[in-house]
Amino acid sequence: MKLAFDIMGGDHAPSAIIDGALDFAKAYPHEEIILVGLPCVLEALTALPANVSPLACGSVMAMDEDVRNLMRKKDSSIWTATELVKTKEADAIISAGSTGAQMAAATLLLARIKGCERPAIASALPTLDGGKLFLDVGANADCTPSMLLSFAKMGAVYAEELLNFTNPRIVLLANGTEAHKGNKLIQDAYALIKDSGLNFSGNKEGRDILVGDYEVMVCDGMSGNIAIKSIEGAVSIIMGMLKQELTSSLKSKLGAALIRDNLYRIKKAFDQDEVGGAPLLGIKGISIVCHGSSKAKSIFSAAQLARKCFESDFVNKLESAL
Amino acid sequence: MKLAFDIMGGDHAPSAIIDGALDFAKAYPHEEIILVGLPCVLEALTALPANVSPLACGSVMAMDEDVRNLMRKKDSSIWTATELVKTKEADAIISAGSTGAQMAAATLLLARIKGCERPAIASALPTLDGGKLFLDVGANADCTPSMLLSFAKMGAVYAEELLNFTNPRIVLLANGTEAHKGNKLIQDAYALIKDSGLNFSGNKEGRDILVGDYEVMVCDGMSGNIAIKSIEGAVSIIMGMLKQELTSSLKSKLGAALIRDNLYRIKKAFDQDEVGGAPLLGIKGISIVCHGSSKAKSIFSAAQLARKCFESDFVNKLESAL
Repeated sequence: MKLAFDIMGGDHAPSAIIDGALDFAKAYPHEEIILVGLPCVLEALTALPANVSPLACGSVMAMDEDVRNLMRKKDSSIWTATELVKTKEADAIISAGSTGAQMAAATLLLARIKGCERPAIASALPTLDGGKLFLDVGANADCTPSMLLSFAKMGAVYAEELLNFTNPRIVLLANGTEAHKGNKLIQDAYALIKDSGLNFSGNKEGRDILVGDYEVMVCDGMSGNIAIKSIEGAVSIIMGMLKQELTSSLKSKLGAALIRDNLYRIKKAFDQDEVGGAPLLGIKGISIVCHGSSKAKSIFSAAQLARKCFESDFVNKLESAL
Repeated sequence: MKLAFDIMGGDHAPSAIIDGALDFAKAYPHEEIILVGLPCVLEALTALPANVSPLACGSVMAMDEDVRNLMRKKDSSIWTATELVKTKEADAIISAGSTGAQMAAATLLLARIKGCERPAIASALPTLDGGKLFLDVGANADCTPSMLLSFAKMGAVYAEELLNFTNPRIVLLANGTEAHKGNKLIQDAYALIKDSGLNFSGNKEGRDILVGDYEVMVCDGMSGNIAIKSIEGAVSIIMGMLKQELTSSLKSKLGAALIRDNLYRIKKAFDQDEVGGAPLLGIKGISIVCHGSSKAKSIFSAAQLARKCFESDFVNKLESAL
């Protein structure tokens, strides 16, 4: 397969994206890699492996740039890389840049699958109960009940095809587990999903997200983004406090040395680099959204995910299911 | 002052609520305590201290009961206890029961302060930067931009009067820090609060909640509830993993013994029992909402908070400010 990398997007771009892409090129010598970036960045790349080629773009959508600017930046790295998927010159596009721009480029260039009202970002979550799916985590800040139903349907197909769950349990993220909880959006979506024939298991709360006991958690992009970033923030702060405490005295340093392996296992359980990227579900093509803070390891994982989507023929399967 | 405790509400009711109330009665012998509960519970309470008196109610609003049932349960513990504040037989009411029922009873019996569109639950948050205020954390699942403006105003007064912050910085919880981020609600509230004369510092993300660098964080009750419970869940899971890892071998147990004090400090930093309760802002009276999972220590802290609200004459100050 051919993978296009937007090497200009992300907090650690271009170096982290290039490193991740080159690691992937080395690990998978039969796949073709296209690095899409500004000429000044590409010029510095000498002696690229045989399966890696550069492609120059003319501009970059900044991380915090208004997505409406995309229409005036059709030479940007994200537009150029997505266009390669449209013209079949690439099978997938990977970016850690502006999520809004990536979603807009995918929707405009690749078009939506019939039956998908709006694409959603489906993030794989590590839970006590194994890896689960959580969507939408940020593509759609304002949602309708029918959009949440469509996320539930797409999530179910993804969970079956790529995560190997049989008859996955779908839940809604709400402010309580009872059926009458939630805002109007969640209450109306509850009624829709309940009658949809999906394996619906009702509402879950924020504190249930990492526990598991579901396969697909559905919510609007605003709630999903707040939940996932709140969890990230809490994990990062506890880990920071642990580090500070465990290096604060000779005694604590000794203790820390004895539990090094234990702490490593906990850190690894929450390591988002292991997950890497989240696919944009609902578009006619593979577009993997990476965290803005992605480092090389994340980009490598995201490329593996793109490969898995491609090998499983996921887009066609989703189209048939919807 | 006189404090009314709804001893029937909460996961650990009635014993945890009674224990917390009695601890408070002992620590503050000049305050009067009223325990509102079912006769069968009150009968078992023998030899109450001189400053504690029982008051029988006829029913209980269950934790997951539809709040509309409250109108048919005007003999419930939450309604009876709130009524004591209305008739000036008590100065504050404390409950760990159904939040919806507590809010409905407060709104119907005590009425709203002029200028407050809807009461909000204002939770004190421990952040790296000290204790901050976060509202609404669950009273209003559906909000309008003007409600968020009113939360911002009430939060600013609370932060000044009870948390001693001068000119507190107000922020909105969104899915990104840029001004154009957020759903329609947050975008419209952004414009309103920006022009309100409050010390507005823009948008913050989920990962900023525990960092601080603000004094009052404003959001709708659905987002606030999801954020706070996501953080609680993440903290609880990491602490659980730590406990499991640190008791998994002799080596890790030895290490754990050396860092006992360090772990205790981290646990204490996130201990919600230290905070206890959150006031319902915007009603003509003091009603402290406690976490459903409250134990005696939380209830004791909540009673201290009620006392602080009373001593500072907060309700009148809020009324003047609005």
